[in-house]
This record gives sequence, structure tokens and C-alpha cells, in this order.
Amino acid sequence: MSGKPPGNTPTSLWGGRFTGGPAEIMHRINASIDVDRRLYAEDIAGSKAHCAMLVAQNILSPQDGAAIGAGLDQIKSEIDSGRFAFSAEREDIHMNIEGRLAELIGPVAGRLHTARSRNDQVATDFRMWLRSAIDRLDAAMRDLQAALIDRAEAEAATVMPGYTHLQIAQPVTLGHHLLAYVEMLGRDRGRLADGRRRLNESPLGAAALAGTSFPIDRHRTAAALGFDRPAANSLDAVSDRDFAIEFVAAAAIAGTHLSRFAEEVVIWCSGEFGFIALSDAFTTGSSIMPQKRNPDAAELVRAKTGRLNGSVVALLTIMKGLPLAYGKDMQEDKVPVFEAVDALELALAASAGMVRDMRPDRERMHAAAESGFATATDLADWLVRVAGLPFRRAHHATGKIVKRAEELDCSLGMLPLAELQAIEPSITSDVYDLLGADHSVASRTSFGGTAPDRVRAAAQEARKRFLG
Amino acid sequence: MSGKPPGNTPTSLWGGRFTGGPAEIMHRINASIDVDRRLYAEDIAGSKAHCAMLVAQNILSPQDGAAIGAGLDQIKSEIDSGRFAFSAEREDIHMNIEGRLAELIGPVAGRLHTARSRNDQVATDFRMWLRSAIDRLDAAMRDLQAALIDRAEAEAATVMPGYTHLQIAQPVTLGHHLLAYVEMLGRDRGRLADGRRRLNESPLGAAALAGTSFPIDRHRTAAALGFDRPAANSLDAVSDRDFAIEFVAAAAIAGTHLSRFAEEVVIWCSGEFGFIALSDAFTTGSSIMPQKRNPDAAELVRAKTGRLNGSVVALLTIMKGLPLAYGKDMQEDKVPVFEAVDALELALAASAGMVRDMRPDRERMHAAAESGFATATDLADWLVRVAGLPFRRAHHATGKIVKRAEELDCSLGMLPLAELQAIEPSITSDVYDLLGADHSVASRTSFGGTAPDRVRAAAQEARKRFLG
Amino acid sequence: MSGKPPGNTPTSLWGGRFTGGPAEIMHRINASIDVDRRLYAEDIAGSKAHCAMLVAQNILSPQDGAAIGAGLDQIKSEIDSGRFAFSAEREDIHMNIEGRLAELIGPVAGRLHTARSRNDQVATDFRMWLRSAIDRLDAAMRDLQAALIDRAEAEAATVMPGYTHLQIAQPVTLGHHLLAYVEMLGRDRGRLADGRRRLNESPLGAAALAGTSFPIDRHRTAAALGFDRPAANSLDAVSDRDFAIEFVAAAAIAGTHLSRFAEEVVIWCSGEFGFIALSDAFTTGSSIMPQKRNPDAAELVRAKTGRLNGSVVALLTIMKGLPLAYGKDMQEDKVPVFEAVDALELALAASAGMVRDMRPDRERMHAAAESGFATATDLADWLVRVAGLPFRRAHHATGKIVKRAEELDCSLGMLPLAELQAIEPSITSDVYDLLGADHSVASRTSFGGTAPDRVRAAAQEARKRFLG
Amino acid sequence: MSGKPPGNTPTSLWGGRFTGGPAEIMHRINASIDVDRRLYAEDIAGSKAHCAMLVAQNILSPQDGAAIGAGLDQIKSEIDSGRFAFSAEREDIHMNIEGRLAELIGPVAGRLHTARSRNDQVATDFRMWLRSAIDRLDAAMRDLQAALIDRAEAEAATVMPGYTHLQIAQPVTLGHHLLAYVEMLGRDRGRLADGRRRLNESPLGAAALAGTSFPIDRHRTAAALGFDRPAANSLDAVSDRDFAIEFVAAAAIAGTHLSRFAEEVVIWCSGEFGFIALSDAFTTGSSIMPQKRNPDAAELVRAKTGRLNGSVVALLTIMKGLPLAYGKDMQEDKVPVFEAVDALELALAASAGMVRDMRPDRERMHAAAESGFATATDLADWLVRVAGLPFRRAHHATGKIVKRAEELDCSLGMLPLAELQAIEPSITSDVYDLLGADHSVASRTSFGGTAPDRVRAAAQEARKRFLG
Repeated sequence: MSGKPPGNTPTSLWGGRFTGGPAEIMHRINASIDVDRRLYAEDIAGSKAHCAMLVAQNILSPQDGAAIGAGLDQIKSEIDSGRFAFSAEREDIHMNIEGRLAELIGPVAGRLHTARSRNDQVATDFRMWLRSAIDRLDAAMRDLQAALIDRAEAEAATVMPGYTHLQIAQPVTLGHHLLAYVEMLGRDRGRLADGRRRLNESPLGAAALAGTSFPIDRHRTAAALGFDRPAANSLDAVSDRDFAIEFVAAAAIAGTHLSRFAEEVVIWCSGEFGFIALSDAFTTGSSIMPQKRNPDAAELVRAKTGRLNGSVVALLTIMKGLPLAYGKDMQEDKVPVFEAVDALELALAASAGMVRDMRPDRERMHAAAESGFATATDLADWLVRVAGLPFRRAHHATGKIVKRAEELDCSLGMLPLAELQAIEPSITSDVYDLLGADHSVASRTSFGGTAPDRVRAAAQEARKRFLG
Repeated sequence: MSGKPPGNTPTSLWGGRFTGGPAEIMHRINASIDVDRRLYAEDIAGSKAHCAMLVAQNILSPQDGAAIGAGLDQIKSEIDSGRFAFSAEREDIHMNIEGRLAELIGPVAGRLHTARSRNDQVATDFRMWLRSAIDRLDAAMRDLQAALIDRAEAEAATVMPGYTHLQIAQPVTLGHHLLAYVEMLGRDRGRLADGRRRLNESPLGAAALAGTSFPIDRHRTAAALGFDRPAANSLDAVSDRDFAIEFVAAAAIAGTHLSRFAEEVVIWCSGEFGFIALSDAFTTGSSIMPQKRNPDAAELVRAKTGRLNGSVVALLTIMKGLPLAYGKDMQEDKVPVFEAVDALELALAASAGMVRDMRPDRERMHAAAESGFATATDLADWLVRVAGLPFRRAHHATGKIVKRAEELDCSLGMLPLAELQAIEPSITSDVYDLLGADHSVASRTSFGGTAPDRVRAAAQEARKRFLG
Repeated sequence: MSGKPPGNTPTSLWGGRFTGGPAEIMHRINASIDVDRRLYAEDIAGSKAHCAMLVAQNILSPQDGAAIGAGLDQIKSEIDSGRFAFSAEREDIHMNIEGRLAELIGPVAGRLHTARSRNDQVATDFRMWLRSAIDRLDAAMRDLQAALIDRAEAEAATVMPGYTHLQIAQPVTLGHHLLAYVEMLGRDRGRLADGRRRLNESPLGAAALAGTSFPIDRHRTAAALGFDRPAANSLDAVSDRDFAIEFVAAAAIAGTHLSRFAEEVVIWCSGEFGFIALSDAFTTGSSIMPQKRNPDAAELVRAKTGRLNGSVVALLTIMKGLPLAYGKDMQEDKVPVFEAVDALELALAASAGMVRDMRPDRERMHAAAESGFATATDLADWLVRVAGLPFRRAHHATGKIVKRAEELDCSLGMLPLAELQAIEPSITSDVYDLLGADHSVASRTSFGGTAPDRVRAAAQEARKRFLG
Repeated sequence: MSGKPPGNTPTSLWGGRFTGGPAEIMHRINASIDVDRRLYAEDIAGSKAHCAMLVAQNILSPQDGAAIGAGLDQIKSEIDSGRFAFSAEREDIHMNIEGRLAELIGPVAGRLHTARSRNDQVATDFRMWLRSAIDRLDAAMRDLQAALIDRAEAEAATVMPGYTHLQIAQPVTLGHHLLAYVEMLGRDRGRLADGRRRLNESPLGAAALAGTSFPIDRHRTAAALGFDRPAANSLDAVSDRDFAIEFVAAAAIAGTHLSRFAEEVVIWCSGEFGFIALSDAFTTGSSIMPQKRNPDAAELVRAKTGRLNGSVVALLTIMKGLPLAYGKDMQEDKVPVFEAVDALELALAASAGMVRDMRPDRERMHAAAESGFATATDLADWLVRVAGLPFRRAHHATGKIVKRAEELDCSLGMLPLAELQAIEPSITSDVYDLLGADHSVASRTSFGGTAPDRVRAAAQEARKRFLG
């Protein structure tokens, strides 16, 4: 080894922010206790299961096992009650707990680390934590679905405009619209469930990377910790974080769904649309403009996509091109996941709150659905189906009729029959029945369509599929 | 309406690139035929199923149905054989086919569009296309797993260093290492399969957004096109693209796995490591340095993560905050998916090729595994397990022994017994058995561990789980 | 070297997509000619400058130099006119041109590669190409600014609502609103210009990575190709692509600005807002609903952020963790840049088109600005400024007045003086002057404010700053 | 308004996490004080400048101004010293300070908000905070450059292999290699400086969005707060965050540079390369393997790209498609920026520390540079330049010679002259001079090349350009 050591580098070189020199920098970049303390309950549960298995396999004496178990229980209660003094010196949650255990029970604490390494330990903790988080998020999604389904049933026949390109296209019902989100959330829950199933293999016992020569029983610890099975390959068990990326990707997709709903809430709350109102519970006002109800909650839900998408990219970036098995890079995996869980949990709760809180203005929605010639398609379909016109001619005639109504500044239903027949002689007065928005929605009886009866049935069905 | 139209804007204002003025810009930004022509087979299949259903439901006459079916078949064969003249005027694949159908069979072509809209049509086409792509990718992943398992069995006892932090940590076997990727790919296939199942609901019949008043049979078209069922909500069916995001996210995770393997290939091919060699089939050289074999294929596999991660972000961005039901924004959904499929397909094939092609240098790997005191953990474990030392004392003694070996510039196994006993008297000559890398790997018999027998069994098991 | 070569691997193993086996896969993943052919003009210009320098430095004979120059000219004209047969065998644009040059002038073609490598060659080409692209984009941004400034002057006094949270907040003028985008574009142009300046150093002569022993003159080639200077470090010159990331990041920011404008166009075009109309040049309709004008161009502009953000992530991912100097990974740098340039160029042209095309409905905007109690702030300010009320009391009184107006379902300006004075006795009839939207905007005379005179002056100033 | 309010929703519906029901959810999603308290110094400075201007413009009485100023000073000192009780009820930093001011000085505190809004206030605070952060980061980058330049001068003649594709390509010097990063950092600093200049316009006085009718002097507050000028358009001033995106993009590019250096440190520290060693200050070991020095700091630097890239995507996502002027979405802008600043600051300090700490193993580097036939290019160049061979023949001959050396398992310089001449008769014994790595680097004297004299001059020059 040649090369000169840097010698007495004056600390000023490290810049004002790191007055302690290299040691402080290393400490600052290396410590993770402020982040990974959220894993404490899982870390302790994992240690207890590992300890019990070591005893059962005669690797650890029952006495030692009992001492370790009792020490861990005490630590758990210390942390639960806020009495635990986290130490930044002990860098991470594992060392904090291990160090405290040694204080409590002496050197026997070291035996807990038999046939284990921080590599399999943290992988186990993190999976368990995420598993719980997924369960909470699933419950929150289910709650949002429940709110939407309740609302959908109540508004199964509430007619509103359906939009494409934010232009009125065809009438739909509010219930139908809300059920679209129930479907999205159903798939979101499916994604979380699939990811949960996939992550539910226990890394414990993979040790540093190669397994161990101690006669451990990985199936036992896996079962004790609620895993479906031990992970089949020790290198894979400690080195992959695909479960975390899969989770944040699913969270980002769910967040994208919520962002769409939030956008609609913002638009619907605008004075120009005025389709719904939110109470003070989900809006903020200003002392000066008390009538102004800013849909802050919806905007924040919409913005949470930023955090979620950012987490996906953060994790994909971190894991890119890392050789096996463990690199310290992987310590950076937790913040993106924690932030994503927090963001999505909040966004789901706020969305459910808004669904329950919003008061639709049914008259205004209905009036909007009657405007914009939203039933032009109904007319064209009638010309094909009833009057037997060729498709192209039906469309052409409809276009002319709409144009005429626009010229006369009236709705389709208000055009005199003579006007209609002047354009297409085969039209009869029967046609008026279908030019209203109510008739239009009632006629969309195809499976998955917006007819109120369909919507009611779909809500029933959704209740069974998602809340049963 | 007030406001002045822009009048005779000189075209020069549009800049040299868009000499045609607004019309050209609109055409350029709006046309998608160069991209979506890849959907032609699915578009025609969807139209044929829709047509057959219309006939079965008496919405279309059998004669018209037959004419449409024959026309579509002819178009299919024209495109298959490269004789079809795609028209940029007809903007997208749907209009290209519809326009050609009208040329072939006249106005009856228009009847095909009964109870259908481009919104449900493109959603159906895209899902079908992606479904096929997923099947191809699944086959490619399976092929890569097969290559890895074959290699893993052949190299089940090939000892190499296992690394953490790119520092030699403990010996493993090459077979064990390769099986780690088999597990990752297993989960990757699981993700694709889950996504495929989730996307396999037919949007056809959702029409523009609200369903239709024609007595269509969505279950029939769904079954005819291989979907599990029709999508339950018409608004959701035409407005969501979560299946595309889920797919690209899964593809990006798989790409991340491949990037890690590729990084290892690059490192292993370096002169300094020299663990494997790749043939000319997967390297490039230079006329001037014929010995230099650049692992270009591995580097390109590693770089494909760029495209894949970019696709995830592109789709998440596009869909953020879009109100229901359809926005033209969603036309931009295809490029990210097509690019992701192409990138991943290529990366998988190249990876499988490299696995089959690479020649491991077993001697060099073994020598490396013997270096770096990689069996220090084995020694510490022995001191705990056999000599009954407390954990901490065992670790402390091991550390001193390693230090001594470093001073003497020899491996652990070459240290005289006297040296060992000077540090820890309880050591006996038995310990030499376990200071070799071969013994070390042989001892890691825990489930998922690197012992050659374990690896052989794991390979067998993997064959059943993944290739059965 | 041990390890068995894969032997006669049946090609079926490679999967249906790669029937040619390893060779085809390697070719497919390695070839870049379909992408990098866009660099041909820059590649030829770079070669000509290099050739001229070699002659000037007596490294190449004048005759050889002349032959090479003539050959390159001919190739340029072949490609320009579409007569050049690109060969996938020759993998990239450099080899295509070099190969053709050898066909045209024989072995002397090889001398062109003296003191050069593909590494510095492609870095030079790419920078030159991007430089031109930046110039085109700058012109397109300038054109969009010109369109906005023209419009802003015409609409300097057109009153419309200013929004926060998509709720009407205070009146502004359309001109003022449009000038906000002029500022954003000004910064966008600044970012492009800064990046252009930073990238404008010539890598040519860095050779493979270490420089060369030939007595080349890098300053001469740098000057000939319009670079400000040669890059100072040969390793850096061939191995960094920060200029590309910087560019796509600037493009993504510009795209984000355009997405905001596009969102506003979509909202303003909705029937509910009805603030502007776009002509057929930037909308699409349907045969069936001729009144429906879908703002497709705006939606596509909004969606282009997907491509742009994706390009940023793609490049950041590709370059992460690459050791110096050149890795084949870097071949993947071009697609994200080309796609970003194309997307932004199109989005800018479409945006400028829409600005020129849109017809504001001034009456409707004005009416909206009068609604929503948008002048409540003006009232509160008056109470502080004129009536001398403490801030808090002024706000409190305003809130009560707005509430009263809401109860009476009238605007602030329609509330009888008695009502006002019942709430706050110090109010005089003078206050009515400022309760109208016109008065409100006229009063906002602070620098950067929305008063029409301010807007006209700001437009003038913007013309000087950005179009001068 | 129709629609039913949600009535007595049992709080259990809100899920266990939000026991307080809607109010708690809204509070949780809305509060930002835990994040934006970092802006306190800027918020107070901004308020003081605003207050002084209001007094100067006779909008506020000197007495009131003095009271406000004194109150703000006291709050500053309370926060500085940790005695300030932040209140989550008061949601954000502005309200915390405003609320405390009212406690301290009574209702006059309200006058501070004259002609101001939280919209322009937070935009001002955030810009000022980021400006300081940029200054700190610039200093940290400069310090890293200084460390690199010092090292580069010391190692200007330390020969090591230059790599392409992680394959040895040509010899370079370590000093030359390190200076490549000095160039990258120079551009990184340039990007920060450009962004700083661009953001340095004061939003203060833009008020909510439209400016104000109070006779304020925005130039005065701009100057007082160190801004170059007031922002020209009030809507733009409160609604854009491009400066934040530009910053995080520049940070991500810098982070990418650092990730490349970190990757090299990891590779160089591996036993197989063994080019450098890091002391305990930047590595971690294990009690059991004391010889193992894990380059944790380098890995964490490499991983910080995750956070940085994630921040870019987060901000781009948040801002996509937001209509003007202010949306609550923008409250989410701070976390990505704060996280990026912290991550980059830490990564820069750790990188500078490693540069100063690392001990190169010069012998090992040199030996590696002599291996791998790294001087083949020198031979080919000699054949062209001195022996006058046509380019292609020179390359062909070199290839054959390298192959022969490989067969004989010797370096190029150890091949007997007869062997050389058997392949290419024109070779003379002069050629041996250039087959050594030292000669090779010495010969690369082109501008920017790796010749030690060039490197020394470049280091000198860099000192002037970057540290002067």
C-alpha cells in the first residue's frame, strides 16, 4: 500500500456544516435510526421468533432464551411507552435494540445473533412492516369503496353529463361515475394483495448471504412470523427489494386514480361547474372571502402523486445495477416506502372523507346534462335502430339537426318536429322520448352501462365483490 | 362569442418546421398511425368479434356481417403481407382499417361501428396487444430461467466468493448465485401474470363512455376475444390505463433485476476479476486490440433500465389528474408501452444468451474464494458451536486471528496451529477442515443455503416450480 | 479458462422472436443506425473539420485530405437526397459513413480515423446536433412568446377572473394572465441558452479517452465546428452526458409550463367555463356531434409532459453509477433526447397555434369576474386604506358583507348602502366604485400588477426583453 | 344546493388511523409546519423588509412598524434558541409567526399583512431559502474540487489503466482521471449559479395573484432581501415553481456525477482491483472480519441519486397541468427540495472526505496499466506515424502482435523483436520505447490529454478557473 494519508487535515476543510470532520460526515451519512426506528416492533418480533427457534433447535439454552425473550419484551414496552432513549451512536434500530438488550441482560444478549446477520434481519423487518402497512392501506381502500358504493346507490339515478375532452358527451349518472372509481380501487387492492402475497416469504436464516451451518429451522421462524414460507435462496433473500418497488408502484397507480378523482372534485367545486359542494371539513376559506371554499384536501390528494411517483423512481434508481448480495445503498430503501405509505394513507382517508362529505347539486347536474346536445348519439342510434337508416346517413342527419338546434339556440328536445323532418323525413314524434337526458341514461342498459337499474345492480354486485 | 380570429397569419410565423401552418401542426401532433399500426391484428380481431356478435343479436344482417368479415380478412392479409398502404390522413389504425373497409365493401362498412366507439375499440385493442406481449415476455423469462437453472446445476459446486459491498464476504457457489436470479424472475413472471389477469376484462361495448341502447352481448365478445369477462363499468373501461402502468412497472422491476445481473457480468468480465468470459457472440472487440472483449450486450441490458424507468414515469405523468372519461392525452399511452416491451424483450433474450454463452473460470473463482479470509465467519461459528465460546469472545478471537493472518500475508488455513492457539487456546486442529472455501460452502446446509446439495435440490425444485 | 461453451444450442431456445440465435440478438441490441442516423450531417461536418485539421497539421497529405473531403461531400448529398442505402450491418451512423467512404475512395478512407475514436466522434456529433435543436426550440419559444405578447396587448383590458384553487379569487385581465406565460418562457429560453453555452465545448481530439500522441490542433477543430473551445479533459469529454440531461430537464420544465397552459385551454374551452373557443384547426369534432369541439391539441400538449419527464428519468437512470470512461450504456442516450426534442417542438408549435387561434368570449369572462364576490379584497383594502380600520376588523366586516350578499343572492355591488352600513358604519357610497371588476383591475397598479396600463407597459417591456 | 350531508357518520368509518374523523384528516393532510419551519429565518427577514417598506411608503405608521419589527426580532431569537413553541394548530410557518406576533404586540400585528398574501410570502421565503442552500452547495462543490485538484497534482504522473466497458483500454494517470470530475463539478456549479440567478427575482408584492392597490415599492423590498429585481408578473410570481425543479434537476445531475465517482471508489476498493484504500473514517468493518473495509460512504453517495431523481419526478408531477395561479398542490413543493439539498450536501461532503482520505496503491495501479496490452493503440499509431503504414494495415498488424503476445502470455514490451518483425517487418527496436505505460501517457500531449505535464498544467488552470 502506498499513497500518503491525508494527515492532519484541518477540520475547516470539511466546511461549516460538518465541523466534526470525516467522523461526523460518516456518521451523518451512515446513521439510519431516525428512519428505521419505525421498524422496532417488527425487529423485536423477529428476534423473539429467532430466539424461540434457536432454543427449539438446541442452539440456545432455554435459560438464555428466556432471558433474551424477557429483555426484548421490556425493550418493546420501553419503546411503546416512549421511554426508550434512541442513540444515534448505535446507528440503526437493530443496534439500538441489541445494545439495550446487552445493558439489560449482559453478554448473553450476543447469542441472539447466532445464525443471523443484519442483512437477513432488516429484510425480515422491512417485509413485516410493509405487510402491515399494506393491510392498513387495504382497509382504507375498502373504506373508500364503501363510501363510493353508498353514494353510488343513493345517486344511481342522478343524471349528470358524461365528458370526453372535458366536453359534454353523453348523459350518465353520478352513481355510475362513482362506481368507476370502485372498479379502479378494486384493482388497486388486487395489486396490493398480489404484492403482499409475493413478499410474504421469510428471509430470516439467510444470514449474511450464504445461509448458515447452524441447524436452524427456517420454516419455524417463517410460520411464527406469519410468512407463507422461507425464501428459497439466501442470496436473493437478502439482496432484492423488488417487493418494495412493486409496492410503491402499486401505490403510485392508486395515487394516480385518486388524483383523477381529486381533479374532478376541484373542477366540480368550481363556481362554473358547481356540481358539488364540500363542507368546511374538507375546504379552507379566508376571513375575507367567507363564501370561498377552497378544495384544499382535493388539491393535496392530487399532489400526493408527486411523492408517490418520486418514490417509485427513487427505489428503481437505488437498485439499478447493484451487484449481489448486499450493498449499503439498500439502506436508502426505507424513506421512499415510508413516505409512500404515509402519502397514500392520508390521500385515501381524505378521499373517503370527501366522498361522504360532498353534497351534489342534482338540479345543476341535470341541467348540464340536458345542455350540450348530449343526446345526439341517442338520436343517431334511433335513426339506425328504429328508422333503419344506414349508419352514415344517420350520422349525417344527426349532425345537421344538432347544427340547426345550435342556430336556434335550443336543445334537441325543443326543436319542432317540422324542423327535424325537414332534415330527415323518417323521424317521427316518438323520437322526443329519447332526447331527454333521463331517457338517455335509462336506455343504456348494456352490461356495464349507465342505466339506473344497471347502476343499482352494479352497486349491489360491487358490495358483494369488494365489501363482502 | 367575441374575440378576433387570427386572420391571415402568414405561415412563416409557424416556423420553418411547420410550413403548412396550423393544419400541419394539428396533423402532426394528432396523428398516431406510425405508432398504433402495431395494433392492427388486434383491431381486426376485435372488429370481427364485434361484427359476429351484432349478427347474433340481430343488430346486423348476416349478409352485412359476412361482407364485413370478408373485408376485414382481406385487410388483415394486406397488412400481413406488407401490401397495405397506410394513410397518414386517416390518422390512426382504426380509421385506416375502417376507411379501407369502406373502399372494399362500400357503405355497409359503416354498420360495423354500431354500438361501438373508438374509445372502447382502442382500449380493447391495446389490452389484447399487451396480453400477447406479456405472453411473449413470460416465455422469454421462462427461457432465461431455464438457462440459469441449467447453468446452476452444472455449477452447483463451483465455489466463488460471495460479496457484500463488493468486498469478499463468504464463499458461495456459482450455481447458488445464479439461482438467486431464478427467484427474481419467478416473481417477475408472477407480476406479469397478475397484471395479465387483471387487464383481461373486455372494454368492448362500453361504447363512448356510457354503454349503449343496442341489445349487445358483451359477454359474447369478451369470450370470443379471450377475455375473462366484460369490464363491469363502462366509464372505467374506457378511461383507465392502470393496466399499462402496472405492466411497465413490472417491466421496470424485471429490467432492474437484469441490470444487476448485467453489472455482475461486466464486473466478472473485467481483467481484474476474470471470473467469466463471453464469446464474440456477446462482445465486441476492436481491430487494434483483439484481446479486448467489450461486454457490450451486458452494458446495453443494464442501460435498458433507462427506457423502462422512463416509461413508468411517462405513463404516470400522462394519467395524473385526468378527469373521466376520455382525454386525447391517453393517445400518448402506447409509445411508453411499446418501448418497454421492446426493451425488455431484447434484454431478456440477450441475458439468456449471455448465461448460455459465458464460460466461467472455475480455478480463478475458487482462488478468489480462498482469499480475503472469506471463511472467518466459519471460524467464529465453530468457536461458538463446537468450542462453546460466548458469542462476543468468539468474534473477538476471530478478529485477532484474521489480523494475524493478514500480518503474515497468508490465508487462514495456512496459519500454524500454534498461532491459532496463541490467540484462542480452545482451538484444535479440527478447525482446519472448515477454513477452506469448499468446506465452508458445504456446511451452509440451512434451507436456501449455498451447500452444493442444497443448490442441486433447489435447482430441481426450481425446474418444477418454473419450468414444469 | 475453464467452463464449457454452450455448443450447438438449438436456435429454438432463443425463442420465436430471435430465430437467428445469439448473433441476431446481439445485432438487434447493438445496432443503433435507426436512431443515430439523425446525426449524419453533424458526423460529416465533424469529419470534414477533423480532416482539414489533419492536413493543416501535416498528419494527412493534402491529396488524401481532398479525396476524403470530396467523398464526404458526396455522402452528404446522397443522404440529403435520400439515395443513401443505410446498412444495419454497419451498426451505426459512423460506420455507415466510414464504410461508404471506403467504397468511394478506397483505403485512404481509413486515414480519416487518425487521432480520433468513435468515442470522441459521437460525443461531438451529439453535441452539435443538440445545439441545433436548442436553436430551433429557442426560435419556437420566441414565436410562442410573440404570439402571447400580441394577444396580451390586444387583451390588456379584458377582464376575467383570477383563480386560486380553481375558485374565483380576484379579477385580472387576460393580457396579464398571458404575460405570466411569457415570463415562464423567458426563463425556459434562459435555461436552454445556459445549457447550450455549457455544452459548447468540443470533445474532438479526446480520442478514445486519453488524448493522442499525434500533433493535432483541437482549438482549430473546435473553432471550425462552432464550439467555444476544446473540452479541457479528455476523459470527461468522452464520458459525460450531463449536457443531455440538462437539456431534457429544461425541456421537461418547459413542457410543464405548456401543460399548465394546455390545462387552462381545456378548462376554458369547456361549456361550463366557455371563456375561449378554438377553431377547427386545433380541435376535432365528430360527425354526430358537430357542435362538439374537442381540444385535442391542448390535451396532446398536456400529455407531452409524459414523454419529457420520461426522458429525464431515462437519462438519469442510464448514467447512474457508470465508471469512466465509456460504456456502451451511453449508446442509449439518444432516443430520450430525440424524443424530447420532437415532443417539445411539437408542443410549442401547437401552443403558439392555439394562442393565435383562440377567440376569447370577453362578455362571458367579464361576467364571471363580476361573480363570486371577486372584489371582496378590494373592499377590505378600502376599509383599511380609506376608512382606516384595523386590519382584522376590516377583514371581519368584509366577511360579513360577503355573507350578506350571498344570502341575498346578489353581487357586492348590488348590496344597498344600508346593508353595508349595517355591518360597518364607516362605509360610504364611494365604495361602490371599487366593487366592480373593472375598477378592481384598474387599481392593481403595483409593479407586476394587473392594471391594464401596467399590462400594456409590461407587454412593451416583454417585447424588448424577449423579441428585441 | 341539494344533496344530503353525511350526517352523523360514526367516526369508526374513518378507520383506526384517523380517530378524529374528517377534522383530523383535514388537519393532517393540510398542516405543513413540520416541513416549512425550516423557512423561519427567511419568513422573518421577508416580513421585516415588507414592514420597513410599508413604513417608508406611509402605509404603516413608524410606531406600528417599530412594534412589528421588534416583535419579529424577538420571535427570531425564540426560534433560534429553540424556545419557540411551534403549534400544529397554526398549520404553517407563516401562521405560527403571525400568531406569535399577535400574542406579543397585539392587533397591530395584523397590519403586517397589508398588501401581502401568503401566496407571495411563501414564494419569497422559499426562493430565499433555496438561494442560501445553493450557496452552501456551491461551497461544498468548490471544496470537493479543491480536494480533487490537490490530489490530481500529487498524482499527476501516477499511471493507472484507463477503462472503456470496464476493460483496460489505454493507460492514463490518476491525476488526469480525478480532473475529469473537477470539470463535471465545474459544470454543476455553473448550473446552480445559473439557476440561482434566474430565481433571484422577488415575488413579494404580487399579493394573492393580481398585485395590490396599495402604493407599495416592490423594488425596495427586492433590494432589501438581496433580490436582483421584483418579478415582472404577479401571476407568474406566485404560481410558478420552475426554480425549484431547475434546482433539483441540477442537483440530480451533480448526484449522478457523484454516483459515478462512488462506483469507481467501490470498484477500486475491491480486493480484485485494490487500487485504493479508505481509512476507517469512511468504511465500516465487522468485529469478525477486521480486514474487511466496506466502502459504506461511497455506496450511500451512490444511493443518494435515488432521492435526487425522485425529487425531480416529484416536483415535475406536482406541477403538471396546474392552472394558474395558486393551488394547494404547491404546498408539496418543499419536501422534495429539502430532501434534495440534504442528500446532495451530505454526498458532496462525503465525497470530498473520501478524496482526501483515499490512499492509492501506485504500484498496483501501474502494474495493471502495464497489463491488458493497454499500449496496443500506441503501437498502431507508431506504425502509421513513424513507419508510414496505411491505417488499416497498421491496425491489422497490431492485432496480430497482440494475439501473439496473448499466446505467449507476455506483455507487448516483452515480445522479442523477431516476433514483432515476423508480423510486420518495418518494426524497429525503437518501438519498445512506447510499449510501456509510462511512455504511453507521456506521449498523450494533445490538449486535454493525459500526459503528466498536461495534467499538471490542467490542474493549475483548474485552480484558477474554479478556486480563484
